[in-house]
Amino acid sequence: MTSDFKSIGKYISILYRQAQSYISHQLRPYNIGSGQYTFLLALYRQDGINQEELSQELLIDKATTARALLKLEEEGYVKRERDPVDKRAYRVFITKKAGKVKPVIYQTIRTWSDLLENELNEEEKAVLGTILEKMVNSAKLHLQKNWP
Amino acid sequence: MTSDFKSIGKYISILYRQAQSYISHQLRPYNIGSGQYTFLLALYRQDGINQEELSQELLIDKATTARALLKLEEEGYVKRERDPVDKRAYRVFITKKAGKVKPVIYQTIRTWSDLLENELNEEEKAVLGTILEKMVNSAKLHLQKNWP
Repeated sequence: MTSDFKSIGKYISILYRQAQSYISHQLRPYNIGSGQYTFLLALYRQDGINQEELSQELLIDKATTARALLKLEEEGYVKRERDPVDKRAYRVFITKKAGKVKPVIYQTIRTWSDLLENELNEEEKAVLGTILEKMVNSAKLHLQKNWP
Repeated sequence: MTSDFKSIGKYISILYRQAQSYISHQLRPYNIGSGQYTFLLALYRQDGINQEELSQELLIDKATTARALLKLEEEGYVKRERDPVDKRAYRVFITKKAGKVKPVIYQTIRTWSDLLENELNEEEKAVLGTILEKMVNSAKLHLQKNWP
């Protein structure tokens, strides 16, 4: 069933882009561009994280990370400050404006999740969660082993 | 199980970024940057497609599409030509160089898929494929209904 599995990667890629497309469209009135909400989500959890750590944690390359944070800074959602210890590094903080938009972002993600969730029964949801978790962990191990 | 499902979206997002991270790293010697191989894959299937159609089909916004194609053009992988009918539009063609790198790209995707596939048994693969397909189709319907 190798060819079946090939389409699993394709489905994941399409699902990701469909979600991005929906979420970006909903967040357009807030001038939060494509993929930028991902950084805000991470910052809500870890305000003040180092920019390079943020890039590594999200597995998003440095150039894309820098571009997204610059846009978010221009729009007043984040502030970057030089790290007092490592002067070459930046730490990234969310602003009050980012705090205000937080419920909108979470609600948008929830609406999209609900839409897909409605298609599945409880068993399917549980099976899907278990399998995806297994794949994520296996991929993580592989990436750590090869690029620690 | 709403909270379980919330993590399904998260897993999909992580799996997507893990794959991007692996594939981009492998394609770095060819100067194919993050996410750019997605455009090449689409062009291998539809050489000469209109740039805007390509953006719509991949659900990747126009600015990101333009940036990726410019980089691919600079590296000699694609050529853009004005559409003879719609003069404001571009059609995108792959070059010989893109043809040469095609087996490398497919092999890279295959290696990553195999790595994840090895974690699952036949039943899990089949169930996963069915559920993901259902979600992709449901999302597609929703997006078409709202932004036809």
